[in-house]
Amino acid sequence: MAAVLRHRGEAMPVQIKKLEENDISVTKKPSPLSWVSYLVIASMAIGIKSWQPLAIASAKQEDGSYNFSKGTMVLMCEITKLLICIPIFLYSYYTTTDPSKRFAMMNLSFQDSLRYMIPAILYGASNTLVYFGLSYINPALFHVLGNIRIITAGILYRIIMKQKQTDLQWLALMFLTIGAILASPDASKSDLLGESSKALLGLFFITTMCLISTSSSIYTELFFKKGQDISIWYQNLVLYMYGIFVNGFYLLFTEHESLNANGFFYGWDWSAIHVLVAQSLMGVILSFVFKYLGNIVYVISLTVSMVITAVFSIIFFEFQCTLTFICAVMVVTGAIYLYYRMKILDHYKIDERNFSF
Amino acid sequence: MAAVLRHRGEAMPVQIKKLEENDISVTKKPSPLSWVSYLVIASMAIGIKSWQPLAIASAKQEDGSYNFSKGTMVLMCEITKLLICIPIFLYSYYTTTDPSKRFAMMNLSFQDSLRYMIPAILYGASNTLVYFGLSYINPALFHVLGNIRIITAGILYRIIMKQKQTDLQWLALMFLTIGAILASPDASKSDLLGESSKALLGLFFITTMCLISTSSSIYTELFFKKGQDISIWYQNLVLYMYGIFVNGFYLLFTEHESLNANGFFYGWDWSAIHVLVAQSLMGVILSFVFKYLGNIVYVISLTVSMVITAVFSIIFFEFQCTLTFICAVMVVTGAIYLYYRMKILDHYKIDERNFSF
Repeated sequence: MAAVLRHRGEAMPVQIKKLEENDISVTKKPSPLSWVSYLVIASMAIGIKSWQPLAIASAKQEDGSYNFSKGTMVLMCEITKLLICIPIFLYSYYTTTDPSKRFAMMNLSFQDSLRYMIPAILYGASNTLVYFGLSYINPALFHVLGNIRIITAGILYRIIMKQKQTDLQWLALMFLTIGAILASPDASKSDLLGESSKALLGLFFITTMCLISTSSSIYTELFFKKGQDISIWYQNLVLYMYGIFVNGFYLLFTEHESLNANGFFYGWDWSAIHVLVAQSLMGVILSFVFKYLGNIVYVISLTVSMVITAVFSIIFFEFQCTLTFICAVMVVTGAIYLYYRMKILDHYKIDERNFSF
Repeated sequence: MAAVLRHRGEAMPVQIKKLEENDISVTKKPSPLSWVSYLVIASMAIGIKSWQPLAIASAKQEDGSYNFSKGTMVLMCEITKLLICIPIFLYSYYTTTDPSKRFAMMNLSFQDSLRYMIPAILYGASNTLVYFGLSYINPALFHVLGNIRIITAGILYRIIMKQKQTDLQWLALMFLTIGAILASPDASKSDLLGESSKALLGLFFITTMCLISTSSSIYTELFFKKGQDISIWYQNLVLYMYGIFVNGFYLLFTEHESLNANGFFYGWDWSAIHVLVAQSLMGVILSFVFKYLGNIVYVISLTVSMVITAVFSIIFFEFQCTLTFICAVMVVTGAIYLYYRMKILDHYKIDERNFSF
């Protein structure tokens, strides 16, 4: 109701303005999710995240490049996600929603909707930074160190979402970062001192990139949760439309020459379609993760799916099962227990001061 | 007093027997140690444990063997430790101890003293198992997996000393084991699946060896702490005399032929003396660790000194500083915080339920 008042006019009585602030802070909190829904969303995120790298790997050429342009892939993903959301939104609007509640499910002012552009811009910026970073540090090490996004997620969550964490949860995020780094197949190959001259600059770029790309996810979470009553499909519609706008602009700016010469779909084949489907589905599932769970759950799911992918690689592609990998899996498991320890103890009504065995 | 009564005769009134049990359970608890003494003992253990591998490495031949026999080294260490303890005990007996307290400082019945043979026998047994283990698994992997002694120390502490630990302390021991494994220079070289046929048997031998050698340390701790009022120098005298007895017997049994042929000190040089001094000093310091701190503190010190040795090797011997090693150091640090967390929070009077930032 407060949001309705807001975009009718600027001059509002103080009384109502206060109500609006309250209203937002209330709707900001996610509605309590059942354990089942929680696990279903997290499992879907883990599943799709385990599938995605396999799709990307199968599209990769031997020299590590792709036949298709990355810019057109990003734009096509935004378009596909929009095409997925439109029918679902329309169906829920006309069929499953009571007419009296239809207004609430798309109650987003134009000014508020403009904020949805922030994640798209940040996402583009972090993609650009990758190119700078890769000129200072080798791709394997770059990929491995990208896992510091786990700890930056915690830091930015504290800054943007103002959510404090216990000492054990911070420790858990540190352990999770380490576990993810150790589980990366390239971790043991990288000698840090070997390229110390450039490593610091590379590390700076990676950290900046992680900060920017994580900000993008956390702002998505913030805006999606702020409009808790708005339909997630409507929020996605708006997000993807801005995404198409920003990425289309970015593509024209960076690749207009090759697009003119080769056409939009140059280099696309079935493996590209495979990537498109995996990325688009992931985008839609991520919107659920951000609206109903959050970015910390997201980085935890990310790590779990990385471990699952590695286990699959060991079983089906005969990768080596090293001692380091086994240690990494145990560190990740321990970190997840540490992060959810308070919830687990509360759930089983265990007094932590006497929890010894 | 109870112990005095005990070796006077078998038939004791029930009243006194009860008193004795109480007495033992009271003296079992170590007298509260100041933080300074705690840190001094732990630091000395860390220092000597960081020195020891360097001494051993300098005595090692290129093919990994030693010029001297291991059996004579073990026996000579026991003799050297005894020679260190005798003058110190005599000095403290005649000079620094009040005559009325002299009886208490060596109040150990012959029957009780016999128990001191248990650690020596277990120690010999675990040394023998090493040879079996090494025929199933390569020395590098054997050395790396030897770190599971950290977690077996926790398990045996629970069984022998009946000391419970919190979930976080168990988790800390798991993380510490992993950190120690990852910090071992040979960890990344070992491919587990590569020798899976023999690996399970090797793992079985390593686990058994760790269980036996850790039992040896924990029994030492148990007996030393039970006689809390007895002088540690007297306890050491007894322990080392039994050690000389058991190891001398063991040496005659296993190496009498080569001893007859080559003589006792065959292959001894200055590097052997170096090892002898390091090992003997370590033995004496360990007795303080066991009597006043305990086996968990010991395995933690062990891991810290391993990290210190590795850092020295990186600085002075130009070892590679790998990403895995940096991760290992962070895991070890996090594990130590986790293990002492409750003590730290209590010390700073922090309420753990509200400890978020």
